[in-house]
Amino acid sequence: MRQIFILAAAISITACSASTDSSIPTPTAPVESTESQSVKQDLSSQQAQRLIKAALKGKQGYDITESLTTEVGQRMAGTEAEARARVWAVAKFKEIGLENVRVEPFTIPGWERGVETASIVSPFPQDLVITSLGYSVATPAGGIEAEVVYFPELAALQATTQDLTGKIVFISGLMEKAPDGAGYGPAGMKRRIGASEAAKHGAVAVLIRSVGTSSHRFAHTGGMRYAPGAPKIPIAAMSGPDADQMERVFQRGETVTVKMTLSPINTGDRPSGNVIGEIVGSESPEEIVVIGGHLDSWDLGTGAIDDGAGIGISAGAAKVIIDAGMKPKRTIRVIAYGAEEIGLLGGFAYRDQHEASLGNHVMATESDFGAGAPYEVHYNSAAGRADMQRLADLLEIPLIEKDTSGGPDIGPIKAMGVPAMRLQQDGTDYFDLHHTPDDTFDKIDPDEMAKNTAGFAAMAWITANSTSNYRDK
Amino acid sequence: MRQIFILAAAISITACSASTDSSIPTPTAPVESTESQSVKQDLSSQQAQRLIKAALKGKQGYDITESLTTEVGQRMAGTEAEARARVWAVAKFKEIGLENVRVEPFTIPGWERGVETASIVSPFPQDLVITSLGYSVATPAGGIEAEVVYFPELAALQATTQDLTGKIVFISGLMEKAPDGAGYGPAGMKRRIGASEAAKHGAVAVLIRSVGTSSHRFAHTGGMRYAPGAPKIPIAAMSGPDADQMERVFQRGETVTVKMTLSPINTGDRPSGNVIGEIVGSESPEEIVVIGGHLDSWDLGTGAIDDGAGIGISAGAAKVIIDAGMKPKRTIRVIAYGAEEIGLLGGFAYRDQHEASLGNHVMATESDFGAGAPYEVHYNSAAGRADMQRLADLLEIPLIEKDTSGGPDIGPIKAMGVPAMRLQQDGTDYFDLHHTPDDTFDKIDPDEMAKNTAGFAAMAWITANSTSNYRDK
Repeated sequence: MRQIFILAAAISITACSASTDSSIPTPTAPVESTESQSVKQDLSSQQAQRLIKAALKGKQGYDITESLTTEVGQRMAGTEAEARARVWAVAKFKEIGLENVRVEPFTIPGWERGVETASIVSPFPQDLVITSLGYSVATPAGGIEAEVVYFPELAALQATTQDLTGKIVFISGLMEKAPDGAGYGPAGMKRRIGASEAAKHGAVAVLIRSVGTSSHRFAHTGGMRYAPGAPKIPIAAMSGPDADQMERVFQRGETVTVKMTLSPINTGDRPSGNVIGEIVGSESPEEIVVIGGHLDSWDLGTGAIDDGAGIGISAGAAKVIIDAGMKPKRTIRVIAYGAEEIGLLGGFAYRDQHEASLGNHVMATESDFGAGAPYEVHYNSAAGRADMQRLADLLEIPLIEKDTSGGPDIGPIKAMGVPAMRLQQDGTDYFDLHHTPDDTFDKIDPDEMAKNTAGFAAMAWITANSTSNYRDK
Repeated sequence: MRQIFILAAAISITACSASTDSSIPTPTAPVESTESQSVKQDLSSQQAQRLIKAALKGKQGYDITESLTTEVGQRMAGTEAEARARVWAVAKFKEIGLENVRVEPFTIPGWERGVETASIVSPFPQDLVITSLGYSVATPAGGIEAEVVYFPELAALQATTQDLTGKIVFISGLMEKAPDGAGYGPAGMKRRIGASEAAKHGAVAVLIRSVGTSSHRFAHTGGMRYAPGAPKIPIAAMSGPDADQMERVFQRGETVTVKMTLSPINTGDRPSGNVIGEIVGSESPEEIVVIGGHLDSWDLGTGAIDDGAGIGISAGAAKVIIDAGMKPKRTIRVIAYGAEEIGLLGGFAYRDQHEASLGNHVMATESDFGAGAPYEVHYNSAAGRADMQRLADLLEIPLIEKDTSGGPDIGPIKAMGVPAMRLQQDGTDYFDLHHTPDDTFDKIDPDEMAKNTAGFAAMAWITANSTSNYRDK
């Protein structure tokens, strides 16, 4: 099922025989091809191969992620830690040789975690491991103690006719593991809308089974939103083992009382910002290829897979190109987005601040799915498909005709017509760690990081040296 | 390396052909053997096989562990939770049909966890995941903020001539994984004596890398002791990923300042107790075979592998025998020891309370190494070795001539001459979970539990029907 990404051996052979009349298999001929373009493509492919080889031999992306997670740690949007991360990013971008390094500031609604405790009061007193969901309101200072009503999944709550006045609602439901994280959307609904769904029925608080795939005792945080008009009630996630425990208690037919206390606060307007650096194009500097990751993280871990990896992969790819002394025709822009976790706010800010030049953005992608090796190229346009096929061939992974946002922070500019592609990473284990205290640097494999960095370097190089604007007519 | 314990298939064959002149391979003939004894041994072996088969088909041990961890949860020695565990054990022992069920109380010095926080203040501000070690003193109420001095392992601290006045000492050092947990003794030394070793040099507090083998972000607690005369300074363990992070910071040559706050308290005399139940012997009821586990747990998890599993395995083995309608000649005594974690206090109390009858204790063992399947029988005496060989043959695992305490709570009576053996469990992953919040029921595999329960049932049956007293002359 899972594609294996084995480049090193293939490259060590093809790199030796590389020349302008290279024996690299010709990809499916693009409609716009001419003989001269084919020669250019071959050259671009050979250069991309050099970059891939350099990335696979190096630790460019890995070292940058190590630096960010060690020297900053968690960097919750809007906090002084995220501000320190911007200082770090500016310095790191300059250090690796990016040009035009700057912060593009914007303002966000701040939210910070406080106390978060819960325990079963009866029938079997014991503590539960929970964490507030992002933007949840607090409980009263003394906590809420109430009978719990169990729903095996969100749909059961949505279908209920029960009066839940004064009750704490517990919504369970497992998330399936998949390389592409397909289970996240469905499982995440209870996190996003569970509070308002329960509040409609009079509930005073909600506990959900964490949206995640591991059996370790970590609660997974994540953003939530209140529906307009619905009473705002506090909501927290409990760890998988605690959710299992609650279910075992309910299976005994017991009436369950829980006490929970949450004290997060909405802190009002707070500063955030996108950090940007560029490799300025030699021929068409106004034409822009965007690569990036998000700089902020949730506050529980150190934001290694989410998304220190993405910062490392994109900045590391730029470093590979710079270190090779190679200059692309178009500008490669590396963006470290702020405030992604609390609503893609960096992505929206970028769209607003660059609206006038979005027509010159020829391609955009983001790494925000951990550090697992890419196993598919996702792209869904006829325009420039030959480039994507060449990229896929170089990476020895398939090109899949599949629509992609290009990544969470690319979504807003994709919606404005900017072409997007994605190197689909193997995220089978991503949701074991995602949004937990366990998202730490030790979980990242340097070889997998190198494959990602290689993929981003090759993608940036090919698209920044193409004549395609990747826009279907 | 690791022995595979596959019984079910073998049993389904041998059970069909079982008879008094069974073709079971004859073990090495014991010196005391006579023809009549051989016949008896064959009968005992066949009966033990029936028990093994019943255990492998059932969930006797698994269900008991599920009940304890769900209905009581954590049960820290000396707390009301441990008291609830005794109530649970009395009820459970009666429910499964044990006789003479009682609590044998004793008093312990209580200790309870409080606040436990730590963070790097400089150069890279961020929180650390830590936990107090058992019997650590508290920091001052406002915490301790001090420069940290790094020692890669305990030996480096022990060898140092540095003045550590006013410093926080950080002792790292990895623990090796092994099926028999061989890495625990060496790695655990820093936990047991680290505080006093650091205090000798003037340190004000100690942080150790957790004594454990996982890379998940859990701190592992565990008991410590102060050396007589050394100043008592607070000590906590940090999670593996946090220790890695600290080491990365030190690798940068930085001066590191940490603030840590611990507020555990010594609560004075507290009640504990051993819960005991028996299958009274039909011929020699005064002769006793002891099996058991410990009822208390650390407070962070729900004490599933440590040692809810041992309670399930030993009480489950008794249930297998009772449910089969079989009555042993000697008495099988199931003991759920209290207060093991804080110094084997239940084991010592049992020794003191039963000193007069220890001469009648023919064999003792305890399950306190998780729920992994047994892969070796450990026994080190000539007397009764044939029984141990028969047991090993029935379980299809090797008999290893190896000295064993019989388990932590057996140690005190072993030292008084009570024979001990052990079914060595596969503990390769035991120290991933041991003494962490992650020690929860979902980590237990029902098939492995069944193999343990089968092993304990067979061991208890064979020894309780033998004529050997297992004592070398």
